[in-house]
Amino acid sequence: MFITNKINLRIPGPTPIPPSVQAAMSQPMIGHRSNEASTLIKSVSERLKPFFGTTENPLLFTGSGTSVLEAAVVNTIQPGEEVLVVVTGVFGDRFAKILTEYGAVVRRLDVEWGKTPDPEDLTSRLQQHPNLKAVFFTQCETSTGVLNPINILSPLVKKHSDALVIVDAVSSLGAVPFEMDAWNVDITVAGSQKAFMIPAGLAFAAVSPKAWSIIEKNNNPKFYLDLKRYRENLSKGTTPFTPAVSLIFGLDAALELLEAEGMTEVFHRHEGMKNLTRAAISALSLPLMTSEEDASPTVTSVYGADGWDSEILRSDLKKMGIVIAGGQQHLKGKIFRIGHMGYCDPFDILPVLSAIEISLKKQNVELRLGTAVQAAEEVLSQYV
Amino acid sequence: MFITNKINLRIPGPTPIPPSVQAAMSQPMIGHRSNEASTLIKSVSERLKPFFGTTENPLLFTGSGTSVLEAAVVNTIQPGEEVLVVVTGVFGDRFAKILTEYGAVVRRLDVEWGKTPDPEDLTSRLQQHPNLKAVFFTQCETSTGVLNPINILSPLVKKHSDALVIVDAVSSLGAVPFEMDAWNVDITVAGSQKAFMIPAGLAFAAVSPKAWSIIEKNNNPKFYLDLKRYRENLSKGTTPFTPAVSLIFGLDAALELLEAEGMTEVFHRHEGMKNLTRAAISALSLPLMTSEEDASPTVTSVYGADGWDSEILRSDLKKMGIVIAGGQQHLKGKIFRIGHMGYCDPFDILPVLSAIEISLKKQNVELRLGTAVQAAEEVLSQYV
Repeated sequence: MFITNKINLRIPGPTPIPPSVQAAMSQPMIGHRSNEASTLIKSVSERLKPFFGTTENPLLFTGSGTSVLEAAVVNTIQPGEEVLVVVTGVFGDRFAKILTEYGAVVRRLDVEWGKTPDPEDLTSRLQQHPNLKAVFFTQCETSTGVLNPINILSPLVKKHSDALVIVDAVSSLGAVPFEMDAWNVDITVAGSQKAFMIPAGLAFAAVSPKAWSIIEKNNNPKFYLDLKRYRENLSKGTTPFTPAVSLIFGLDAALELLEAEGMTEVFHRHEGMKNLTRAAISALSLPLMTSEEDASPTVTSVYGADGWDSEILRSDLKKMGIVIAGGQQHLKGKIFRIGHMGYCDPFDILPVLSAIEISLKKQNVELRLGTAVQAAEEVLSQYV
Repeated sequence: MFITNKINLRIPGPTPIPPSVQAAMSQPMIGHRSNEASTLIKSVSERLKPFFGTTENPLLFTGSGTSVLEAAVVNTIQPGEEVLVVVTGVFGDRFAKILTEYGAVVRRLDVEWGKTPDPEDLTSRLQQHPNLKAVFFTQCETSTGVLNPINILSPLVKKHSDALVIVDAVSSLGAVPFEMDAWNVDITVAGSQKAFMIPAGLAFAAVSPKAWSIIEKNNNPKFYLDLKRYRENLSKGTTPFTPAVSLIFGLDAALELLEAEGMTEVFHRHEGMKNLTRAAISALSLPLMTSEEDASPTVTSVYGADGWDSEILRSDLKKMGIVIAGGQQHLKGKIFRIGHMGYCDPFDILPVLSAIEISLKKQNVELRLGTAVQAAEEVLSQYV
């Protein structure tokens, strides 16, 4: 067969798994209360700290990222308390939904999808609502591919308010700089299946001393998502409930890869992938959904031409073994998204660009085959 | 080295992982919203049904077993509602703790650890509290090794009450018969790292139509553990939040093994392991914690002699590469527990018995080396 059933998975998570991570996950099982497990749990928590940019030890949860978004809500916000959610897409909206479910008074700063908020709009919402208990941000809004500038937005909260800052960094942490302590972030949530290159099933939260002081007074009913249980157990090198040990084996190996490459280099690689992908898409005259400044190094969203169904492109690519993401909610059929985070380098993206060219040509879009790849190679050659 | 660092993991979960399951979990990652993922999710849910003994499709959660114990509570019980928890050890007590956290009025039927409840005691508690909304049982109480007779206890609830029956079957389902529909059970919770032979991180719940009618009216705040979201998504072959795909690959392979062996044969094997282990322990004159009738086919708990510290035995075994469990809470140091569920056969238990003999001898217990193994072989020879 000319095209085999090899899969080139280029969605914004889960990402492909590196071979050394696969091998680590295939180690024989160990008892989750053993000394070996404790050593492992302490080690991975310690080594996650630089990615969060904090002196606090990140907590480990067995669950999807959403479970820890919910933990960030249920441990800090009591019913009737006022919060602000900066909504830049599907995942900002998810924070708002969780908060509504728990009886918070939810103020929203809705931003046009594909854009980041104007800092002045944030300031005026903060001034308008002086009693906010927390402000919720999404660092990379996976649904649109924007990277919200937490380094600018979070200090504004500190300037105008006593509110906690809670950040969903699930689809960015590990791929882009994050300085939780320096930026005044109180809770940062991340997940396993994105830049950390392991399968879904683990999620992480780092919590500031200010947030702990609120959490200690919180009396919402909670059990599995009770952050205090995780802190207490982590101090003893364990988790309150049976953890996904095989995924922790994987995390250990993934952190080894990230450490060997070096954090700065990892961020540089992701930045390069963004530049390369954007240059290639521009060469095809397809409209990028985000500006250069707002774009995330982990995922690139692209509009099709007018009246064009991006699902046709995705379906063509699928036949070539290449899996990209479509649009969510009202963007379904309107955009496609290329994930370039985690276990991914330029040579993983070049074939995606070739496949896009072939599909467009097949759909009678005028183009010279090789146009996007040429533009990508031009970016790439600056790095070699 | 005479004794290598090979590990013989014989705790009551997590269990060792079969090679075909390891291999399945090492398959390349796929998108969790792909058709392949949907086919897989539908398939494993369908194939779990016979183990639950129900026509309802079991729901798949990414989390520890406790997350779904909490789901069973938060989706059915409103604050102030009265429930009965049959507590036979640590995990029954966990149900009570979760229920207390969520404001239920908790009635307890506390049973001496190591025993199952007297059906008459259950009947009298049911008659004493006519307004119970649910009765909570633990099938195998992992902390003591009893198997509560849900086939007898659950129909009693139906006879005397309108309460839902909710069963934690985490450390037994897949190893022993369970007939959810026939026994009048409304919610059954199970986990991945026990008889299903995969790492921790997946958990399951099957829900009766009667329970759904209660769940539909329930208005507790909930998001990640909202059972309705899981039902709605499962009908479309997916999960509401990113699932632990690698573990689902593993579950698929584990179900293949269980199907190839045959459910009856799987149960028969576990029953044999119980008989073999108990015969061996009795031959050593160590007191078993449970009667023949109350004992679980998945785990055997053993008391030491008076004044004896079971942690010394565990530590000796550890040096021989054999990992068994100790006692929890007030039983720490008093008992040890041998897990014999999941990927385990008699020849995995014989070395554990040898190691126990060697440790006892070292501790100046009078015995002839080989005594326990001989008794185990006698049981085993009846099966060969």
